[in-house]
Amino acid sequence: MSGNGACNGTKNGVSNGSAYYRSNPYQPVPDFLSNVDKFKIIESTLREGEQFANAYFDTETKIKIAKALDEFGVDYIELTSPAASEQSRRDCEAICKLGLKAKILTHIRCDMRDAKLAVETGVDGLDVVIGTSSFLREHSHGKDMAYIEKTAIEVIEYIKSKGLEVRFSSEDSFRSDLVDLLSLYKAVDKVGVHRVGIADTVGCATPRQVYDLVRTLRGVVSCDIETHFHNDTGCAVANAYCALEAGATHIDTSVLGIGERNGITPLGGLMARMVVTAPEYVKSKYKLHKLKEIEDMVAEAVQINVPFNNPITGFCAFTHKAGIHAKAILNNPSTYEILDPADFGLTRYVHFASRLTGWNAVKTRVKQLGLSMTDDQVKECTAKIKALADIRPIAIDDADSIIRSFHISLQPQPHRPSEPVPTDEVIPAEEEPEPAA
Amino acid sequence: MSGNGACNGTKNGVSNGSAYYRSNPYQPVPDFLSNVDKFKIIESTLREGEQFANAYFDTETKIKIAKALDEFGVDYIELTSPAASEQSRRDCEAICKLGLKAKILTHIRCDMRDAKLAVETGVDGLDVVIGTSSFLREHSHGKDMAYIEKTAIEVIEYIKSKGLEVRFSSEDSFRSDLVDLLSLYKAVDKVGVHRVGIADTVGCATPRQVYDLVRTLRGVVSCDIETHFHNDTGCAVANAYCALEAGATHIDTSVLGIGERNGITPLGGLMARMVVTAPEYVKSKYKLHKLKEIEDMVAEAVQINVPFNNPITGFCAFTHKAGIHAKAILNNPSTYEILDPADFGLTRYVHFASRLTGWNAVKTRVKQLGLSMTDDQVKECTAKIKALADIRPIAIDDADSIIRSFHISLQPQPHRPSEPVPTDEVIPAEEEPEPAA
Repeated sequence: MSGNGACNGTKNGVSNGSAYYRSNPYQPVPDFLSNVDKFKIIESTLREGEQFANAYFDTETKIKIAKALDEFGVDYIELTSPAASEQSRRDCEAICKLGLKAKILTHIRCDMRDAKLAVETGVDGLDVVIGTSSFLREHSHGKDMAYIEKTAIEVIEYIKSKGLEVRFSSEDSFRSDLVDLLSLYKAVDKVGVHRVGIADTVGCATPRQVYDLVRTLRGVVSCDIETHFHNDTGCAVANAYCALEAGATHIDTSVLGIGERNGITPLGGLMARMVVTAPEYVKSKYKLHKLKEIEDMVAEAVQINVPFNNPITGFCAFTHKAGIHAKAILNNPSTYEILDPADFGLTRYVHFASRLTGWNAVKTRVKQLGLSMTDDQVKECTAKIKALADIRPIAIDDADSIIRSFHISLQPQPHRPSEPVPTDEVIPAEEEPEPAA
Repeated sequence: MSGNGACNGTKNGVSNGSAYYRSNPYQPVPDFLSNVDKFKIIESTLREGEQFANAYFDTETKIKIAKALDEFGVDYIELTSPAASEQSRRDCEAICKLGLKAKILTHIRCDMRDAKLAVETGVDGLDVVIGTSSFLREHSHGKDMAYIEKTAIEVIEYIKSKGLEVRFSSEDSFRSDLVDLLSLYKAVDKVGVHRVGIADTVGCATPRQVYDLVRTLRGVVSCDIETHFHNDTGCAVANAYCALEAGATHIDTSVLGIGERNGITPLGGLMARMVVTAPEYVKSKYKLHKLKEIEDMVAEAVQINVPFNNPITGFCAFTHKAGIHAKAILNNPSTYEILDPADFGLTRYVHFASRLTGWNAVKTRVKQLGLSMTDDQVKECTAKIKALADIRPIAIDDADSIIRSFHISLQPQPHRPSEPVPTDEVIPAEEEPEPAA
């Protein structure tokens, strides 16, 4: 009757050495197209992220961010075009000279002048882009598809002649004509472009639509496929995931997702998704313990708060509150946690100071405080905590005071509690009043 | 060569009176299973949201939130179980007496005692839940599937005998055995349950997995299908969308997504997704202008900040910065905006005070300031703004000062600029240095 298969995408239902993530019968049958366990990251905090409303990165900050991303293990770091400003050009040069393990890219218009300026900076590759949707052709650059193809091939051949890597991407791919798009990509694939890019520039794409487009493209080109998803409709992580399922090879991210408008696929959100799907690949390749540090660094640089609900690092990501959750989590964390906080150098917190508290959470706290009570006594004490929480918000200190004072009332003589002791002990299952789905 | 079809999901490529959202050839072929243009919302801020780490709602706050949600137009409001605490029970009664248009639900364990307590509060329906995954069966309630089915039928028949609506849901559906799940749902469907629920309690589900499970279930039961998605891996909006595509009828949301850990599908994020897909349905049914007010109210009640990157209401959701974006947006907002800020009572902001500024954005600002310059003069002035922005962060005031002082330098005599005048005038397309995808 137990689940078979694996929620983490390990093949053939075999888990990576522990039963932690097992038991999901709905894991899709492994698909030869899928790259969920072998994707690469193009980290664009220093390009897309610089287009975030609050971003102003001086050279020193850019270097700090580039080094941190390199240490984290991203495959590529993408920089603002040297054509944007003289300082942007100098910053490109400075970052190329750092000798990072990550390859350095810059992102340019499909224009020979920009390409020439960029190859002089010392980058490893160029990400070339042009708008192909009728919207952008009409309202942005005003060029037709024949002109786009001709220019694309010229620019790509020039970059390849300089020995550099080159990606060619449309902008606003999901509102471009499918036949135009495939024709163009087929043509640039033929001249040896390293990657083609699919970009949801306006954030309109849906997951199954992404899957269909990338899968179709996968049958047309032999080069790698990079994807870029804006988050206007909240689907940027899911769309990246579906792109990988359909055979995309590279995902664009930025730290905390910063970028134009409300940004793109966040590095941390993508890590949350992928570590559940492909734990071995993700944990061996990326230094997940560094994630919080990088997010804090970028948040400070652009003067924002890490969102309360950020995957992994949001302050409540590993906090459990409802009685029924708390009890089960104390028994076995995988009941209500698909992510292990320890993988990110973080810890879980079981909330026991609210009206939704269950007695199992209080029992654990009693043990942590080094006190001793029978189950009936813990239940009586829990009722006191809930009664106070019904009247006003209570803090951990309040709950601890109630526990301690209740404990004292049980003793014939005053008793000095010892220091808190963490416990991993399993607590027997019993019902809690607050269900949660 | 232009796109055919519609990104907004309008059938047959016919847009709703404007060309604003048109031109997406990848819109899936309309599917008879899909409910993307006829879904209902079960708003759970006062149940799932109360399980958020920071949530402490007193009766007055609960009533304020319930009234605001009702005014917004949600179909159902779900409340914490009356079995959780005496105050929770009294709050249920108080909200039932408000006479709201929305139906009032409460969320209980699959247990006759809880059901009896709940029907006495005056609610319109009960959402019944029990864990069915091997994880929860083993570590939470310890019951087997035969017991679950027997109890479920008893509880459902009791609730129906009282004339109330009843939903039956598994917890952790995506880690439950498929055959167990379908057998159970088939049995409760047979005794006339109104809805069955699919819950991704741990936030592990992926969009195509959701589509497959809901579509399979759609072929097994004739009742409605409610879905509930946690956001641990950043897919809660996308999963809700795919559930609707597969025939789900009801989506659980909370304001800002607050709930256990980092929460569930946010009401605002779902609105962003659905107004792009089904603008007529969403705009006619929900008072989108009220969204910001409700989010601010809940954020204040639980003492959090609205995330900087929140869909629609994040401070940068409608801010455009890169030169190439700014220029196109000034030509036609649909080039880089799939959401219209006016639908939410908000406005867009084109950033022109940065090193990524393009001259088209500056030209617009010059007009807004009531000044007059030739294009060559605007380009010269733009170079001055970018040069300063290369040295230090500049504010709008700084950019305005540069524009004004440059303008004065052009005049034979000092000139007093008139008040800013907004302009909708179309500016001719020309190239900008910062590409953006």
